[in-house]
Amino acid sequence: MEKVTLIVNGMSCGHCVKAVEGSIGELQGVKKVSVDLAKGKVDIEFDANLVSLNTIKETIDDQGYDVK
Amino acid sequence: MEKVTLIVNGMSCGHCVKAVEGSIGELQGVKKVSVDLAKGKVDIEFDANLVSLNTIKETIDDQGYDVK
Repeated sequence: MEKVTLIVNGMSCGHCVKAVEGSIGELQGVKKVSVDLAKGKVDIEFDANLVSLNTIKETIDDQGYDVK
Repeated sequence: MEKVTLIVNGMSCGHCVKAVEGSIGELQGVKKVSVDLAKGKVDIEFDANLVSLNTIKETIDDQGYDVK
């Protein structure tokens, strides 16, 4: 299991939190996802054998946010 | 048919636009609703015989926004 903290720009409200947490949480291999809206950070715990960090980043990007 | 423009604080993104337009648009008697996110304004066209302005304001409030 790996842990990563991504810096994500553009999340502005509770809907954005749900959009990111919901979409990442649905990915197979993701165990935990937690958005800190004030800091613009997303903590993710995932199994790298099941899902790649790139897939996670692309999923956030697909929701309309900018992953640093 | 009446037209009103409400000043609404707290709308920050496209999700907020959808939340307001969706919830107001579902009210019986509302013909048109349009959010200007940059200006924080919501234009509404409604039949006052079917829905009150108070109900419209409360519906926006229920979505978590502050109607001025």
